[in-house]
Amino acid sequence: MATPIDPTSAAFLLAENRNMPMHVGGLQLFRKPEGAGRGYVREMYDAMRDVDEIAPLFIKHPYRSPRTAGQLVWKPDEQFDIEHHVRHSALPQPGRVRELLELCSRLHSTRLAWERPLWEAHVIEGLRDGRVAMYTKIHHALVDGVSAMRLLQSVLTTDSDKRGMPAMWGVQPGSRAGTASRRANEETERSLADVPVSAFHTALGITAEAAGMPGALIKTLRAGVRNETSSVSLHAPRTILNQSITGSRRFAAQDWPVERLRGIGKASGTTINDVVLAMCAGAMRSYLLELDVLPETPLVAMVPVGLNAKQAGVASAEGGNAVGSVMVQLATDQPDPADRLESIHRSMKEGKEALSSMTPTQILAMSAIGQAPAILTPLLRMQGIVRPPYNLIISNVPGPRTTHYWNGAELLGTYPLSIPINGMALNITCTSYDGKMCFGLTGCRRTVPHLQRLLGFLDDEVAALEKAAGVRGA
Amino acid sequence: MATPIDPTSAAFLLAENRNMPMHVGGLQLFRKPEGAGRGYVREMYDAMRDVDEIAPLFIKHPYRSPRTAGQLVWKPDEQFDIEHHVRHSALPQPGRVRELLELCSRLHSTRLAWERPLWEAHVIEGLRDGRVAMYTKIHHALVDGVSAMRLLQSVLTTDSDKRGMPAMWGVQPGSRAGTASRRANEETERSLADVPVSAFHTALGITAEAAGMPGALIKTLRAGVRNETSSVSLHAPRTILNQSITGSRRFAAQDWPVERLRGIGKASGTTINDVVLAMCAGAMRSYLLELDVLPETPLVAMVPVGLNAKQAGVASAEGGNAVGSVMVQLATDQPDPADRLESIHRSMKEGKEALSSMTPTQILAMSAIGQAPAILTPLLRMQGIVRPPYNLIISNVPGPRTTHYWNGAELLGTYPLSIPINGMALNITCTSYDGKMCFGLTGCRRTVPHLQRLLGFLDDEVAALEKAAGVRGA
Repeated sequence: MATPIDPTSAAFLLAENRNMPMHVGGLQLFRKPEGAGRGYVREMYDAMRDVDEIAPLFIKHPYRSPRTAGQLVWKPDEQFDIEHHVRHSALPQPGRVRELLELCSRLHSTRLAWERPLWEAHVIEGLRDGRVAMYTKIHHALVDGVSAMRLLQSVLTTDSDKRGMPAMWGVQPGSRAGTASRRANEETERSLADVPVSAFHTALGITAEAAGMPGALIKTLRAGVRNETSSVSLHAPRTILNQSITGSRRFAAQDWPVERLRGIGKASGTTINDVVLAMCAGAMRSYLLELDVLPETPLVAMVPVGLNAKQAGVASAEGGNAVGSVMVQLATDQPDPADRLESIHRSMKEGKEALSSMTPTQILAMSAIGQAPAILTPLLRMQGIVRPPYNLIISNVPGPRTTHYWNGAELLGTYPLSIPINGMALNITCTSYDGKMCFGLTGCRRTVPHLQRLLGFLDDEVAALEKAAGVRGA
Repeated sequence: MATPIDPTSAAFLLAENRNMPMHVGGLQLFRKPEGAGRGYVREMYDAMRDVDEIAPLFIKHPYRSPRTAGQLVWKPDEQFDIEHHVRHSALPQPGRVRELLELCSRLHSTRLAWERPLWEAHVIEGLRDGRVAMYTKIHHALVDGVSAMRLLQSVLTTDSDKRGMPAMWGVQPGSRAGTASRRANEETERSLADVPVSAFHTALGITAEAAGMPGALIKTLRAGVRNETSSVSLHAPRTILNQSITGSRRFAAQDWPVERLRGIGKASGTTINDVVLAMCAGAMRSYLLELDVLPETPLVAMVPVGLNAKQAGVASAEGGNAVGSVMVQLATDQPDPADRLESIHRSMKEGKEALSSMTPTQILAMSAIGQAPAILTPLLRMQGIVRPPYNLIISNVPGPRTTHYWNGAELLGTYPLSIPINGMALNITCTSYDGKMCFGLTGCRRTVPHLQRLLGFLDDEVAALEKAAGVRGA
């Protein structure tokens, strides 16, 4: 039975082309449980493949024909073949993280075909340190990046002894009704897979309107980008990141202890999020300097921020908070790490204040662009806004603070893969998990050369910020 | 610059759907040269990726738009990305042939997207015996199965010391002009990659007409299938193979010494090709018996055979021989291996005689169906011929008789992957190489369950035929 596709999802499907696949992804690293045998990864794969029932989100695919009057609809896949979606892969020698990131880059480059449900998961063995990886991709028409990371976590448990757990795409026994024990732990354990697709986009209702395009919203956005409100109007310099992109991707990932970032924040009177932005700023400065293409004026990052529902004026499926966005000057023109951190802290504060003084319509506009840049940024360009309103997107999505497991396998880290778009060739998304700040950098391979170098620069910047803040000895 | 797509190629593109991908493939196994280091496979991959210039066949993709008036044309890929096409993969533990065949099955199941050139190659490491595998897939719109196998061999050499050899998709230095030394070895060394695409289909000119559909040819085919000429008219029983298929594939491959097959042939007064057919017949009988679905009347195989140009009345790009086809009764109703071999030998002989007594138009029709069953068999069905004219296709393509190398890596075996279609869920293609008869079995995973079992049955049948022919002691 066909069901309508909401306008936001349709916009993501239709905005897609070979150079701009519209799926988000996640890389998870697991440690095998004690006593795992040689065939452990295959057993893990088998458990993921042999699910009793596929959750609704994972069984529908987009469909369009004369019979649907050319309209896109969701249709259940009558010939659903789990082996097409869940795959068992291995890394070439020597099985370093480098080979893993290469595989993820390649997997993230390929579009999901509309003829099947829009997701894939790869259980990956062959890391020489014995860890097991899982790369998952899901179309943005099904879930946004934040929901995707939550979905990945939703099937995990804090109980290392629990077994018989289904995969993300499996319907969890009793999940529809819910139970007292599950509710107690619902923040991490409720099954998002059972939530109807539309709910994932409720917070994006406004985007749906924008995707339908005409009218007041685009006008507001356009005005907002041009006027002097600092949360909207910063003029971003042209950089190598702000060009047309190709369809090839490079993914880089690494994590740092949250404790180190917290230490820097405490000593400097800034937030962990400010420190994350300062890490990105310093790394971008070093990276662009090395390529000899650092612009004179500072880079501007679009940073999604939480808004409470009252402030945003929109209800959210996630229960209270909507996401707005702030444009932050990254101070990449300043050579001193401490100065950059201080500038960023100020810019972020001003941005948030500006956001709180905006009219509801302006907030809605920022909320929309904060959540669906992939479809709204091209719209802005179509509206004659040719200068980039920002240079890159940096998101920081809070995750669980405790250790989680899947059938006894400990989740060691979880790294988001996002969507580079034309004019915005690099996306940095971080998520915190179990005391680690996990960075995922997704870029167009051609437009953002040597993306992996950024990991080294990020690491340098943590040390530089610690030194500047006097947290560790020189 | 766009160039027209010939009707045959267009037919293969348009006949394709999710359940019936129209690409052929090849699995090649190599032995690393002496002294190869740990990084050998990566070096091999690098050499394949880093080609100076891509051959025309491998850089064009199909394209259709209002500007081409909705017609399919070939267009060079302006953003050609070799890393999308040439990939470095690895097998999961324990790295048996089983894991290799699983990977090939999966890779062979996925359609090639029209937005890029229609081919992929995977350099595969991780076989526990140290061999290196390469799986290649090419769309049937570019080459037919026989040409694909020749293309794969065309870049090899008999010289184990030769280095600096390009990959199949690279333009070979001096290949356009040709040189005396190259000509001397041209059977195996000429670069088919430099031949214009259209040449691959010259032998299929007739198919092009058929794909355009109307007229005399279809009439002839239809009459041929219904009349009593044995090469055309056998009534095949319904079997589990003759159903609609899904998009999932299973591939099985193994080789047997040509010497054993020759021994059986000599002792029984039959040809190697007869013995190949008898192996398939015996294996199919055991397989269908085990599933308790063996039909009472014998299975019929469509077997492409060589015709000389005069006989066929068509010129061929391959210089003299065209391919016709013969319908062979596989005698699967007979329990005795020797009886089956004798029956097959007789049926094959009658088929060839019938072919030689056919009118030129009938031969052309058989030639067409022998070469493009994937597009012609559905046409027959559309013409009201609902009973299957044959149950499966068994091809035997002669290959090089000597040991070949690629940059010092010895080719140990080469196994064809073909195209199952609706109503014809299993395809068996063999190719001889260096004293081995290499079988490749490609089937729809759902319609042909436990395809791997056939390998064991083939092996049993060789032994049974040897025993029956008195070649080896009981």
